Amino acid sequence: MTVRAAMGLPVVGMVGGGQLSRMTHQAAIALGLSLRVLADASHDSAALVARGVDLGEHTSLADLTAFAERCEVVTFDHEHVPNDLVQALEQAGHTVLPGSAALRHAQDKLVMRERLAGLGVPVPAFTPVATLRDVQGFAGHVGWPLVLKAATGGYDGKGVWVVRDAAEAEAVLASGVRLLAEEHVPLQRELAALVARSPGGQGAAWPVVETVQQDGICVEVVSPAPGLDEDLAVQAQELALRLADELDVVGVLAVELFQTADGLLVNELAMRPHNSGHWTLDGALTSQFEQHLRAVLDYPMGSTAQRAPWVVMANVLGGEGDPDLDRRLHMLFGRDPGLKVHLYGKDVRPGRKVGHVTALGDDLAETRRRAVEGAAHLRDGRWTHHAQR
Amino acid sequence: MTVRAAMGLPVVGMVGGGQLSRMTHQAAIALGLSLRVLADASHDSAALVARGVDLGEHTSLADLTAFAERCEVVTFDHEHVPNDLVQALEQAGHTVLPGSAALRHAQDKLVMRERLAGLGVPVPAFTPVATLRDVQGFAGHVGWPLVLKAATGGYDGKGVWVVRDAAEAEAVLASGVRLLAEEHVPLQRELAALVARSPGGQGAAWPVVETVQQDGICVEVVSPAPGLDEDLAVQAQELALRLADELDVVGVLAVELFQTADGLLVNELAMRPHNSGHWTLDGALTSQFEQHLRAVLDYPMGSTAQRAPWVVMANVLGGEGDPDLDRRLHMLFGRDPGLKVHLYGKDVRPGRKVGHVTALGDDLAETRRRAVEGAAHLRDGRWTHHAQR
Repeated sequence: MTVRAAMGLPVVGMVGGGQLSRMTHQAAIALGLSLRVLADASHDSAALVARGVDLGEHTSLADLTAFAERCEVVTFDHEHVPNDLVQALEQAGHTVLPGSAALRHAQDKLVMRERLAGLGVPVPAFTPVATLRDVQGFAGHVGWPLVLKAATGGYDGKGVWVVRDAAEAEAVLASGVRLLAEEHVPLQRELAALVARSPGGQGAAWPVVETVQQDGICVEVVSPAPGLDEDLAVQAQELALRLADELDVVGVLAVELFQTADGLLVNELAMRPHNSGHWTLDGALTSQFEQHLRAVLDYPMGSTAQRAPWVVMANVLGGEGDPDLDRRLHMLFGRDPGLKVHLYGKDVRPGRKVGHVTALGDDLAETRRRAVEGAAHLRDGRWTHHAQR
Repeated sequence: MTVRAAMGLPVVGMVGGGQLSRMTHQAAIALGLSLRVLADASHDSAALVARGVDLGEHTSLADLTAFAERCEVVTFDHEHVPNDLVQALEQAGHTVLPGSAALRHAQDKLVMRERLAGLGVPVPAFTPVATLRDVQGFAGHVGWPLVLKAATGGYDGKGVWVVRDAAEAEAVLASGVRLLAEEHVPLQRELAALVARSPGGQGAAWPVVETVQQDGICVEVVSPAPGLDEDLAVQAQELALRLADELDVVGVLAVELFQTADGLLVNELAMRPHNSGHWTLDGALTSQFEQHLRAVLDYPMGSTAQRAPWVVMANVLGGEGDPDLDRRLHMLFGRDPGLKVHLYGKDVRPGRKVGHVTALGDDLAETRRRAVEGAAHLRDGRWTHHAQR
């Protein structure tokens, strides 16, 4: 449906009021747009900064339909809209991107694993499991420890359990969620390949990055991935572009990868702007947020050129006590006039992602130090340098 | 007054709903803020994209007061708030930056000229004029043509008249506005020195740019000003920083300059983000919009480092007929994946500033061509290359 706003430009709606919507709205402003947001609450991160906010449930077809009727294109800041509701919107004639057929590979890890294995894409050994007997049978092949994952609904390490024996597996099985089991991959590090694809099939790939996790939460992203063999980097980009094509993704596709002694394995997929691409806001000529909008609007892709030899993004996690962010910003800006800060307007709770900082530089170690120290200062108001790995 | 919003961060309010507010809101989002906007109408450029919009008149003390009570700091996207109302807000205890004492130098050209002349800053020869006799007396010193300027209220070439003789002068005098007369300066080109200053006196200067005007409207800005002698560039930056100090400016100060065979003369001052600084959005590590917010919040200034050897900004002016901007964006992005586009959400009318584009590059001629062609395409849908000078 054609729904136009100022300057005769299309209305893009994003389901979800989190920081991804917030930063997409920032990008929308430059393109002459104003992102329409379907948020749970008026204090959601994106709802605080956008003019066009509808309050509603992303699990309600009525709310989704009312929202879609006010948009020319609907897209997502998370994977939690039930796939049958996405299909219902499509059947009602709404343009939803990525579409339901693509989106299910980012919603259900078992569907994703099976599809990727079918395409011959390297993934960890996996199997669906429902009983302890299933898990023990799989352990007979891959050994302990192994990984149990909720097929749906996990994020930031939630829904993933490394289990060392049958007793630990049984405790996870008791939760009753639909599970798959995976081999515990002896990984060297984690990488991410971020690409975008338009409906006509044009693809664009940013440099492959290294992602550093703590307790299952991404804390640092380095672009490009230090010391990554050029052939492996190209292989990762080609893999991500191929997956975007095979799965008919429109928008940003993030492919989380394990680097092992034997090569790359695909860990997870996300079909939206992704934490591994926050560095592009300040560090690439086209940010993932602008690119996602271009893709869903079928505009040609923007240049993904990196704007400095090294770009490092560090997430700001909530710390303990009163953050007094106003004072911490004073201190941080005084110390590092070149650091770029992004805060999400969210209530600060321990461990919650409430912002990120980005440093650009010529020297890798120095650039990492600046980003990590900056994020740590916003978290706890000290200048302690936390060693990363 | 302390007025805090999400994350305990201060509420910054901007009077005026134009594109400067719109782009300041974009910058505010990164800092964890959401700009509060006092707009004339809900379809104003900034009102389309910000959550916190108050509708009201910038000439109404009641509206300004109600707005200021919802803000910790009030600042401006234009100079049209009467100075006595700014003073009244200050007297009521509101933090208004830049303050009324500074702002009058951006509101009244005669006050500005007299102050700058008193500081020994080079300005064109000028005098207040009320009668034809006054103008003729001044013409006896500087000759014809000379320039008549409305002391207040002008912008984009409005309120400035180049008059060739007494008859033309008489026609301007008949308008009844308060006028000053200035010598018609034999300028080589126009430059602008953009700086920002915090309440504590910290200053930051971006590179000095060349501005290209057509019919009194800025159409192109090149950073740094091509071929500008290093001594003159430093002199212009120091002059702007000194003026910011002397006038106690807080926020961005744009100093428009004439370059002549005998050196630099100050033409105009603006105490807000300025068209000559739009290139900083994509071309500098800290944009003028972020810097203005940092300044009024008394945060330390950000790095003004330029992000490419050449950055060229070209204004998108409204053309004739239906702009079909959606289609033109398709075409433009296909042709130049590295061009950065900013559209303001404004109704397109001939000659109106409705957006700008920015090109970054290593080669001056190529970078200018990309920016100028891109802006021309958004204006009229053709690829005609309009020679600039």
